Amino acid sequence: MTTRENDGVRAVIWAGDCLRLLDQRRLPSDTVWIEASTVDEVASAIRDMVVRGAPAIGIAAAYGVAMAARACGSDPDALDAALARLAAARPTAVNLRWAIERQRGRIAEGAGDLAAVLLAEAVAIHEEDVTANRRMGVLGGALIESGDVLTHCNTGSLATGGYGTALGVIRSAYADGRIGRVYADETRPWLQGARLTAWELVQDGIPVTLLCEGAAATLLARGEVSWVVAGADRIAANGDVANKIGTYSLAVLARYHGVRFMVVAPTSTIDMNTPDGAAIPIEERPADELLSLAGQPVAAAGAGAWNPVFDVTPAGLIDAIVTEAGIVEQPGLAGMHELMGWRA
Amino acid sequence: MTTRENDGVRAVIWAGDCLRLLDQRRLPSDTVWIEASTVDEVASAIRDMVVRGAPAIGIAAAYGVAMAARACGSDPDALDAALARLAAARPTAVNLRWAIERQRGRIAEGAGDLAAVLLAEAVAIHEEDVTANRRMGVLGGALIESGDVLTHCNTGSLATGGYGTALGVIRSAYADGRIGRVYADETRPWLQGARLTAWELVQDGIPVTLLCEGAAATLLARGEVSWVVAGADRIAANGDVANKIGTYSLAVLARYHGVRFMVVAPTSTIDMNTPDGAAIPIEERPADELLSLAGQPVAAAGAGAWNPVFDVTPAGLIDAIVTEAGIVEQPGLAGMHELMGWRA
Repeated sequence: MTTRENDGVRAVIWAGDCLRLLDQRRLPSDTVWIEASTVDEVASAIRDMVVRGAPAIGIAAAYGVAMAARACGSDPDALDAALARLAAARPTAVNLRWAIERQRGRIAEGAGDLAAVLLAEAVAIHEEDVTANRRMGVLGGALIESGDVLTHCNTGSLATGGYGTALGVIRSAYADGRIGRVYADETRPWLQGARLTAWELVQDGIPVTLLCEGAAATLLARGEVSWVVAGADRIAANGDVANKIGTYSLAVLARYHGVRFMVVAPTSTIDMNTPDGAAIPIEERPADELLSLAGQPVAAAGAGAWNPVFDVTPAGLIDAIVTEAGIVEQPGLAGMHELMGWRA
Repeated sequence: MTTRENDGVRAVIWAGDCLRLLDQRRLPSDTVWIEASTVDEVASAIRDMVVRGAPAIGIAAAYGVAMAARACGSDPDALDAALARLAAARPTAVNLRWAIERQRGRIAEGAGDLAAVLLAEAVAIHEEDVTANRRMGVLGGALIESGDVLTHCNTGSLATGGYGTALGVIRSAYADGRIGRVYADETRPWLQGARLTAWELVQDGIPVTLLCEGAAATLLARGEVSWVVAGADRIAANGDVANKIGTYSLAVLARYHGVRFMVVAPTSTIDMNTPDGAAIPIEERPADELLSLAGQPVAAAGAGAWNPVFDVTPAGLIDAIVTEAGIVEQPGLAGMHELMGWRA
């Protein structure tokens, strides 16, 4: 047990005139920073997964909007076009469009030094995200009484402004001595669990054991895992959750084995305009991400591959959605409306 | 649709004085044959996964016993010790010990030219396996009415004497025009699905689509897969099945989605002396198989990994066990006893 919460990692840094992004495709073997000075460089970094994780994508996009305003000066059409290109970088995570919409609200106010206003708003979005993560850590961490936990993909400092969503909850509960060991799916095909989550947890001194997704059912059957804790890329109005491919599988397996399933995400990930999971666009990435490995073909020429990046977990399989605004247990339309202050 | 069944692949070939083994660690990029001339070379090839798949391991072991008899001459203690080393090569697949026990039966008969007798028995075991696979293909293939199928790991010609167990059923049903497409889990950490199953199916002209294990739940939810078809490394007396890690996960997911689950294995994989799945020893391989990729570290130093190679699927999740001696539907102790001609 330790009360240490190093959490020194920051993957998105505003450097005064450009965004410095820790290239997450190269971790943990290489620590390479990429500088994005234009909105299109930010869009490319999002599309190419230099920066990934729904909240981190939203933060990077917010800075990208400020860059666009600086470049476009008083040409509203050019700014509009730039924001549309940015919004199209990836389809599933709603934080991207949430951040752009929030910046559009500032633009609509017609402030004098627009670029400065948007930069200040991006900084605010960034800082609010870290604050939200700390708050979710406290709220979600309190749900975990004891035992080991299983997590999927990377939801830590690298995926957010800092500290993390699901990994923030795990950091918090571990700091309070209520988690023994963190199991992390390696998370094919990008191996975010192996490359990123293990790297973050090792730096924090939190014991982490990787497993391949195929072993999760056997792990859950052993009875030592009390919670599966996952993040989200978009939460629909009825509580359905889109998250990294493999999350839905874990939710079914958790329910089968009597293990509880928690989703941790800021309210910026909730899209009340998406009625349910069926309405969430699911990005499919190139088959080559499965057909080759480390640049070498791994499957015979002629084989196909199906590579959806996200899946949808129905609200009925989720025990708790944890946000900075509160927890929705057994989520559904009414609970989500209450959380978001909507009239049912 | 095609009626073609190429199935030209043979991974275990007796070459007159040595065993030629197609090195399955190098496929599909390199076709490398390894020659084993001694029982200990056969044991190494099994341990190091040059040859893998429960039936293929049994066949290789049978030839290994013949080599041991040739080398040990009339020294029964040396022969015993060699057979013990061979039996210890891998713990989970029972075909290894089944083949050695069958050869022990020949040894006990005290024939004159023992090496020749054991070689003939190995050839018989090899040929019987192909015959059994063809029979299982007919029996199991008839259970599949239509739709796509999902399979796991490699259970084809490479894993057997030829044709395959689960993949034999798929070959048979496809040849009869009753399967549209084969989905194959890539099967971490060794990627047997990507490297071996896709390679076999492409050669047969059968459409194959790879997916990562995390995507299987979403695939099953789409309703296009009618059967999950898997092999086995050991089947206990009550019908519990040990198979490649990830199989149990598929069985739970199949049941949840109303998709049927079939296990295909010759009776040599059934161990009536193992009462249930809990009594099956599950091999764990080195953590490094998860912590590195293509020879390079993929996870931060300090991270652990849990790498069980097999899991146990309880009989209650299995709709049919298909063997060359017949099909056991809704398997349990009584059905397994009846299949094996045991009195209940």
